[in-house]
Amino acid sequence: MPVVEAHLLEGYTPEEKSRLTTALTDAIRLVVPTSDEAVTVMIHEMAPENYARGGKSRAPAPALPDPKQIALDFLAAMEKGDLATAEAMLAPGFRMTFPGKALMATIDDLIEWAKDRYRFVKKTVTCTEAFHKDGAAVVFVSGTLSGEWPDGAPFEGIRFIDRFEIKGGKLVSQDVWNDIAEERSK
Amino acid sequence: MPVVEAHLLEGYTPEEKSRLTTALTDAIRLVVPTSDEAVTVMIHEMAPENYARGGKSRAPAPALPDPKQIALDFLAAMEKGDLATAEAMLAPGFRMTFPGKALMATIDDLIEWAKDRYRFVKKTVTCTEAFHKDGAAVVFVSGTLSGEWPDGAPFEGIRFIDRFEIKGGKLVSQDVWNDIAEERSK
Amino acid sequence: MPVVEAHLLEGYTPEEKSRLTTALTDAIRLVVPTSDEAVTVMIHEMAPENYARGGKSRAPAPALPDPKQIALDFLAAMEKGDLATAEAMLAPGFRMTFPGKALMATIDDLIEWAKDRYRFVKKTVTCTEAFHKDGAAVVFVSGTLSGEWPDGAPFEGIRFIDRFEIKGGKLVSQDVWNDIAEERSK
Amino acid sequence: MPVVEAHLLEGYTPEEKSRLTTALTDAIRLVVPTSDEAVTVMIHEMAPENYARGGKSRAPAPALPDPKQIALDFLAAMEKGDLATAEAMLAPGFRMTFPGKALMATIDDLIEWAKDRYRFVKKTVTCTEAFHKDGAAVVFVSGTLSGEWPDGAPFEGIRFIDRFEIKGGKLVSQDVWNDIAEERSK
Amino acid sequence: MPVVEAHLLEGYTPEEKSRLTTALTDAIRLVVPTSDEAVTVMIHEMAPENYARGGKSRAPAPALPDPKQIALDFLAAMEKGDLATAEAMLAPGFRMTFPGKALMATIDDLIEWAKDRYRFVKKTVTCTEAFHKDGAAVVFVSGTLSGEWPDGAPFEGIRFIDRFEIKGGKLVSQDVWNDIAEERSK
Amino acid sequence: MPVVEAHLLEGYTPEEKSRLTTALTDAIRLVVPTSDEAVTVMIHEMAPENYARGGKSRAPAPALPDPKQIALDFLAAMEKGDLATAEAMLAPGFRMTFPGKALMATIDDLIEWAKDRYRFVKKTVTCTEAFHKDGAAVVFVSGTLSGEWPDGAPFEGIRFIDRFEIKGGKLVSQDVWNDIAEERSK
Repeated sequence: MPVVEAHLLEGYTPEEKSRLTTALTDAIRLVVPTSDEAVTVMIHEMAPENYARGGKSRAPAPALPDPKQIALDFLAAMEKGDLATAEAMLAPGFRMTFPGKALMATIDDLIEWAKDRYRFVKKTVTCTEAFHKDGAAVVFVSGTLSGEWPDGAPFEGIRFIDRFEIKGGKLVSQDVWNDIAEERSK
Repeated sequence: MPVVEAHLLEGYTPEEKSRLTTALTDAIRLVVPTSDEAVTVMIHEMAPENYARGGKSRAPAPALPDPKQIALDFLAAMEKGDLATAEAMLAPGFRMTFPGKALMATIDDLIEWAKDRYRFVKKTVTCTEAFHKDGAAVVFVSGTLSGEWPDGAPFEGIRFIDRFEIKGGKLVSQDVWNDIAEERSK
Repeated sequence: MPVVEAHLLEGYTPEEKSRLTTALTDAIRLVVPTSDEAVTVMIHEMAPENYARGGKSRAPAPALPDPKQIALDFLAAMEKGDLATAEAMLAPGFRMTFPGKALMATIDDLIEWAKDRYRFVKKTVTCTEAFHKDGAAVVFVSGTLSGEWPDGAPFEGIRFIDRFEIKGGKLVSQDVWNDIAEERSK
Repeated sequence: MPVVEAHLLEGYTPEEKSRLTTALTDAIRLVVPTSDEAVTVMIHEMAPENYARGGKSRAPAPALPDPKQIALDFLAAMEKGDLATAEAMLAPGFRMTFPGKALMATIDDLIEWAKDRYRFVKKTVTCTEAFHKDGAAVVFVSGTLSGEWPDGAPFEGIRFIDRFEIKGGKLVSQDVWNDIAEERSK
Repeated sequence: MPVVEAHLLEGYTPEEKSRLTTALTDAIRLVVPTSDEAVTVMIHEMAPENYARGGKSRAPAPALPDPKQIALDFLAAMEKGDLATAEAMLAPGFRMTFPGKALMATIDDLIEWAKDRYRFVKKTVTCTEAFHKDGAAVVFVSGTLSGEWPDGAPFEGIRFIDRFEIKGGKLVSQDVWNDIAEERSK
Repeated sequence: MPVVEAHLLEGYTPEEKSRLTTALTDAIRLVVPTSDEAVTVMIHEMAPENYARGGKSRAPAPALPDPKQIALDFLAAMEKGDLATAEAMLAPGFRMTFPGKALMATIDDLIEWAKDRYRFVKKTVTCTEAFHKDGAAVVFVSGTLSGEWPDGAPFEGIRFIDRFEIKGGKLVSQDVWNDIAEERSK
């Protein structure tokens, strides 16, 4: 039954407002036992001049980009080997953690580390999930890996999950878990 | 600057309302570029008689339990070997996916599968994250594993992440990724 | 989908608030094409000190009595011949209009008029409807009449409808239509 | 003193919103003892994208037509003998009840029944009232009849009241009471 | 922390709404101990057709002019000797009170009274404050006077404060205090 | 017609809320041309746990004391010669400005300055006005002075106005204008 009203400065697109109403509906359902159908969300938009905090109007800021899309775009750039694009998506202080190799700081580190592991790898994404926590967007991307081992033998269907933190539209961290070693050890 | 108002039937505890205001704040921040400080959330509670949908009042339902706690309690019960408690937390149709072993349906399956892998394992949890999506709570628990290999040699600091889906307070699924094979292959 | 919020001074009973949420739901549905299920009504109650018009608080007043009940009570008093009770329910200036006899002002007039028509009459009420309009509650009561003709022959199943106007809990007018003459003319 | 806020999808005309604010004011006054002047109604309109139930936007639907006008249009078509127009206004399952003749289902039935009663009849409407109840609009039309008896003698000033139920803009039922037999029996 | 929502008919300018949000922020801070930063004000504007009191829409009226500006304009007109403009700003029944001379009713009175006091006087305004009280705007203008005494000697830095009452954009009263006599008595 | 809603943490007294509704009504009337009667103010109170900014609840703070009363209490203490009470009401950095004597910082300064001016003085207050501006309450107290000149001759009816600034319940400044010199120079 909950009814949620969100008062915003005007200027968001329908897609951005749709992301917002979904996020607010999910927030309610994390605590209140109710069906989706029973959660009503209303967004009230205001002209900047109709809002004041501390007696002063605020300029509206563009919505944050969809963090799921940022994570997927980064993975796509990496898969294509478009390292310039991938690196442009990283925040200062970015760090990566991959199985067996904690805390790489650059994509070059990653390439160096990966070269003994596989010739190439492709991701088939089956699930992308995002939420906000402690000042950052958190995105989980999971699915399966396919590619070729260093000896050229193909592999596929190896489970993976990546966790990204994103602030201000830039990637702050990437943590990766997968079953590559499990598969290799068979 | 957003202001969020949530209208609820009365009866939630301060802790439950705190979880709700946090979730609503996070929902806003997923889309609207603003500081935490600038997000105001107000909960308006109503007596059941003051609310009607379709001309009828609704009885308030108890809040959903914190899904993070459910996941942590399940992991603790498993670690203690308290299988009765752990099994009581499973929804019908529960399924588990562990590295190299998809789709186990019972805890007995898990124990059978695990017995060649390690004598015992303990989890040090460093991060627990929960959100709601598509009708279920999703919880991610990550951290490191320690324990003994089948030969009695100790191990520690092995990364893991578990993803749980929880509906109506019961576990629907558990997906596990970790670096055990990575470590063994060294 | 409409959501209706009504801000009231506190002090209404659950039954009174139920009448109000029903009336508000019906008001919406007179204009907005929607199912009952989709109309949410919330009543926000305030202590008198939390409300001011013109800078002054207002004392809450008791809810108006249910006008349907007033009409039914009047009809019951008339049927029992409890004329004192019936007359006490009339506002100054009350007027009645019955078939073939416009504008009687007192219950004595009615009794005089009725005595050639039937020995007694009872009402079986099948429908009572009330709404507010132009400063008065309007109540329609309809159903069938049974009783005895002046010659003692019984009758039953004769349709009737009464329209009442009620102000301040007192009856202002009663207009009556029925099929008695139709039946007699057979 | 009550303040009513109605949140609607945008798209209603000023006339439709005027009907709505009147209906909401009347709803309040059915229960709360207050002057018309003291009832404030505010309609907040939203773009469809600013509203979500169950996480989904809803398309706005056109307002329901004024049920009073539907009833009056039907009576006018009948009076003109424009049976095609009148029949097009009927919902499937429509039924009529006239004095002494319950439950006619078609306008042809009505004409057959009426032909021994009068040559023609005209309605002078003095009061039209509408409200919503149990999923249907209810309209009462009352006033006086004039016309000619089968022998050509004129009559006038005969009281009548019609009760209509209207769903989805179509007439579901018509119940008629009048003093024709009363008058004939004089 | 307070959040203030003001529902208005649409049609106010950004400058007028800025005056309003400031006044509402100040109203809160007169009673609630909070920083300016923590007071959020939202103005919700409505088309006239979306608002009804007593079931009737209201036409929006232009905002009241800024009373500070009215007071300053009046003082400027007086200083320039533009008496026609100054007199046009007075409400019927206007009265002035100056040091030692209560209750002058016309500007001619003032000029007559002032002529023995100084050749001319100019105001340097350092503070203008306005608020609303008991149906009138109250404006205080304070600062220092400079000019020439009747003997041609210059003066400056003499404190003054004027209190104006303004209704419907017209000056109802002016009360003046200053240190001219204090200065002359030195 | 404006409707104002103020959302506050609960805990204010009826008197404090009355001051607040009056201040909000006055704030509206400074800009919107409307009668007092047409301004509706509603205060919605919340338990601390129902409010969060930045995801955190806030503890309610006691209302600010009425600044008019503070100013009047200070004047009464001065008039009685209760200097301890008066001094306890001063904020650090307090400054006074009296006719012909700018910027005294202590009450002793004032007494020294005043001793050649009058034996004693009493204030008859006819108007006390308060509002909030730029982080401080501003209070104007005006009326007439009576007392005895240094030579023992009595005086009365001499106009005065005091302007106080008050922060956190303490006096920050006092500015005084009056007609004493005007009167003496007669």
